[in-house]
Amino acid sequence: MFERPSVKTAAYAGDRTIQIADAEPTAPEAGQVQVAVAYTGLCGTDLHILHGNMDARVARPLVFGHEMSGTIAAVGDGVDGWTVGDAVTVMPLAWDGTCPACLAGNSHICQNLDFIGIDSPGSLQGLWNVPAETLVRLPAGIRLDHAALVEPVAVAVHDVRRSELQPGQKAVVIGGGPIGVLIATVARHFGGDVVVIELDPQRRAQVQELGFATLDPRAVDQVAWVEQWSGGAGADVVFEVSGAAVAVLGATALAKVRGTIVVVAIHPTPREVDLQRVFWRELRLLGARVYQRVDFETAVELVADGVVPADALITRIVALADTQDAFADLEAGRAMKILVDVAGAR
Amino acid sequence: MFERPSVKTAAYAGDRTIQIADAEPTAPEAGQVQVAVAYTGLCGTDLHILHGNMDARVARPLVFGHEMSGTIAAVGDGVDGWTVGDAVTVMPLAWDGTCPACLAGNSHICQNLDFIGIDSPGSLQGLWNVPAETLVRLPAGIRLDHAALVEPVAVAVHDVRRSELQPGQKAVVIGGGPIGVLIATVARHFGGDVVVIELDPQRRAQVQELGFATLDPRAVDQVAWVEQWSGGAGADVVFEVSGAAVAVLGATALAKVRGTIVVVAIHPTPREVDLQRVFWRELRLLGARVYQRVDFETAVELVADGVVPADALITRIVALADTQDAFADLEAGRAMKILVDVAGAR
Ligand SMILES: [Zn+2]
Ligand SMILES: [Zn+2]
Repeated sequence: MFERPSVKTAAYAGDRTIQIADAEPTAPEAGQVQVAVAYTGLCGTDLHILHGNMDARVARPLVFGHEMSGTIAAVGDGVDGWTVGDAVTVMPLAWDGTCPACLAGNSHICQNLDFIGIDSPGSLQGLWNVPAETLVRLPAGIRLDHAALVEPVAVAVHDVRRSELQPGQKAVVIGGGPIGVLIATVARHFGGDVVVIELDPQRRAQVQELGFATLDPRAVDQVAWVEQWSGGAGADVVFEVSGAAVAVLGATALAKVRGTIVVVAIHPTPREVDLQRVFWRELRLLGARVYQRVDFETAVELVADGVVPADALITRIVALADTQDAFADLEAGRAMKILVDVAGAR
Repeated sequence: MFERPSVKTAAYAGDRTIQIADAEPTAPEAGQVQVAVAYTGLCGTDLHILHGNMDARVARPLVFGHEMSGTIAAVGDGVDGWTVGDAVTVMPLAWDGTCPACLAGNSHICQNLDFIGIDSPGSLQGLWNVPAETLVRLPAGIRLDHAALVEPVAVAVHDVRRSELQPGQKAVVIGGGPIGVLIATVARHFGGDVVVIELDPQRRAQVQELGFATLDPRAVDQVAWVEQWSGGAGADVVFEVSGAAVAVLGATALAKVRGTIVVVAIHPTPREVDLQRVFWRELRLLGARVYQRVDFETAVELVADGVVPADALITRIVALADTQDAFADLEAGRAMKILVDVAGAR
């Protein structure tokens, strides 16, 4: 017998409050792996949870977090192919495998999807048990802080793949936050010619530093700009990442005949869409949600190869005890991406 | 020298008025063919024109009409392959061939499209000169009254083709008017399992007589009905043909994960769309406008083979002089399809 150390956890406790607590780790069950979490990134969905917007869905206290990196600490019965010490990230989806969506090959958006970190405990804990199928291997030499970006990069890969953007095509990204920048990065890497529309001058400057053209929609007639940029055609693909009603209404005017608009942002209430323009130009409007394994694997490569400007995106790394303050900074728009140093709290 | 007879024309003259006039026919120019129009169907777009909704676009007086059948009366210089007496219909589109949409292979929605019968004179005239490229051959033995339905059938073929509906899949058609019925007919012919949602009891009865399942959305929970009908999946394709805001808002709830919603109806103002559902189920919303030649050729076959229930759809045939009254009946919903006997006025 040995005394197992307790680990620190950060949980959403309701009422906009993060609760830091000690927890006794449990051994991984059969089919599970215990991951020693290194870093967990905080994202907009976590902020929605903290704001209580998802109280109808989440249990409280909820140890949340789903953008992470770590190493395997223990392997449960019946798990093959994984060894203690392996560097991993987790694709935080668990599907039932039996619903019509799963049977049609769309298990990533299973009709009964368990999003780990929302519907079940997430990675803001020192030792985290997850189903072995969710593990994604990290290559030797990848920095674990950078690897905490794999999950949002996988979102961006999924969005760009879903758009069917082809090399040489023109893509407009509406919204220059973390996901917008990652979509722009992936679209450019896949051969697209990209412009990012962003209202905030500081964000615009950050996006420009990453080598992207930007537009201030208050200063420039964006429709005329895109039309000229595209030789009178319109953009091949428009990514709506801002979540703003006015952006949705304007997105259709930017797309070429038979162009694609990808709805990436969450729109909690119905939005007005210019269906006359959708009809007139035979536009295609696509929803894109989470990712598939191929997206995660591509994302690992893009982070490992330095395609993703990780250092520019990670505004800072905070201690687990400072998670609540970190969310305040995110909310105020004072950060692109903040990582929590979960290992440091162990 | 011989005296050329004048022909009758029906034109939109502004102020909700149809003007019946005599016109001196002109010989077809080089590249044109003169068609002796047999029948012209009246449609919702013509009604929009009559109501003045398209006054910014149309010249007045406008000889309109674009759903037609006829025979070739004269052939202009440089036209090969057509002979006086050939039975034809016309695909009423003229494109520039040079805009980005045309160069990308989407000439049917050319950025400078001339829709013949809206942007230039249409078929409510006894002798009509059209570019030879617009002709579509009718097979021997087809009834010319039935053949006047080819154009709206081509719209339906285009909509169904664009949806990528596969045999055995489930399609919901919202709106049981002429285009809704034709979409249902084409979708069923292509192997789809179809239900039509229609508020009006008389229209619902007509649709049922054609062998389609129907839903009264005021009497039945359409979402629950479609979910049960589709084994919990949702519909593969939803065709929004009603033009109603509430139908657009509800359409997303009927579609399966990765299902398709085709926007067929004209929505003059932006409509609220449940983008949360679009995101959550990774839906695809497609605009579909007019047709391509393959749609017209398929439509000719479907009419010639009796797949299209032409007699049930043609409420009646009126004299050219009664065009104004016919529109009044259309407007009041007292008819599915009314044809004008243009030949009879010659
Ligand atoms: Zn499932
Ligand atoms: Zn063109």
